[in-house]
Amino acid sequence: MSTQPDTRLRRLREKGSKDFTLACEIIDAAKICHVGITVDEQPYVLPMAMARDGKHLLLHGSIASRVMKSLDSGINCCVTVTHLDGLVLARSAFNSSMHYRSVMIFGVATAVTGFADKEHGLKLLTEHLLPGRMADIRPSTRKEINATMFLRLPLKTFTVKVSKAPPDDPQKDLESTAWAGVVPLRLKAGKPIAAPDLAKGITVPANVRHLR
Amino acid sequence: MSTQPDTRLRRLREKGSKDFTLACEIIDAAKICHVGITVDEQPYVLPMAMARDGKHLLLHGSIASRVMKSLDSGINCCVTVTHLDGLVLARSAFNSSMHYRSVMIFGVATAVTGFADKEHGLKLLTEHLLPGRMADIRPSTRKEINATMFLRLPLKTFTVKVSKAPPDDPQKDLESTAWAGVVPLRLKAGKPIAAPDLAKGITVPANVRHLR
Repeated sequence: MSTQPDTRLRRLREKGSKDFTLACEIIDAAKICHVGITVDEQPYVLPMAMARDGKHLLLHGSIASRVMKSLDSGINCCVTVTHLDGLVLARSAFNSSMHYRSVMIFGVATAVTGFADKEHGLKLLTEHLLPGRMADIRPSTRKEINATMFLRLPLKTFTVKVSKAPPDDPQKDLESTAWAGVVPLRLKAGKPIAAPDLAKGITVPANVRHLR
Repeated sequence: MSTQPDTRLRRLREKGSKDFTLACEIIDAAKICHVGITVDEQPYVLPMAMARDGKHLLLHGSIASRVMKSLDSGINCCVTVTHLDGLVLARSAFNSSMHYRSVMIFGVATAVTGFADKEHGLKLLTEHLLPGRMADIRPSTRKEINATMFLRLPLKTFTVKVSKAPPDDPQKDLESTAWAGVVPLRLKAGKPIAAPDLAKGITVPANVRHLR
């Protein structure tokens, strides 16, 4: 609040970008983010579910949640979304690294107050968790919507960083006999596990099956 | 610095723990963490590689890195390691959630200063990236070690949270016709991609192949 966040990229500048479309792609492909707040000079970094609502990042939590309350108090936050995309195995420890895509978003989150807007928020988060899910489950109750706090953070001040290059070894290391390259990493869905209390005869729907 | 971090768990207390062994397991299974620092009242959350060195978390970066310098200045930080383990699809949006394991570590990081200790740090980080890698690559040079800053954060003040239960729907929702359950998620390695400048005849070693 007192100052603008310093979003200048000093290190590895060639990996940086302010591209909004790219930021959205990275956010849309992620299920969780890491939310950073500072309370009494102590930073806290918390994993949270999220979704994108146009030009805002949408967070939610219990109205009893201390973090949600802190975020709602007008403090600066930093929300980072990261995909670990691979291991970069160079011919030296020094040049080894990782492939990743990340967005750091800076700003002040504001609470969503209208009932319809909160309902819309829960829908967005649910559809982000699993596209098509809203059609299969019952509508949310007034009590559930009231018990949930939604916060919107503008996708305005952000930094994107993408690392996707092959190992970059100096010429003198190229005679190494070590294998060098990239091992791609990807978050993959496994076989769905039915709830123990699932009624017999209910089969895994297509949108769940398609996650594999 | 001014105060102790507040690590009391208020929400979802049953998911919390202070178990050191569990914290180590979660850290050892992760390749990256999210480091939170506060500079001029603005929190920053940065993804970083890491490894565990016994009872410390080990971070590294360029000696020119602003974040490393900030961390080294004696400020409080929070480092969070998170695994997203699954989607919990309940019969309502409200009860849907995720499986995860996370550790939040609070403290002040201190720089590793001795050359041998720094060399040891780079070895730990490299072996954490890929076990057995040190045997295949050339030793690090003095210049490389000197250009790298290593920071150790004690695994002393931390909070572990694990969510691994099936969907928890109220009795009245159990007559829903919606499929309910968990879709497990896991970070998986794909087919290794050789560096474009890899000499002919160098095959993918066993430790790389075993990642799949």
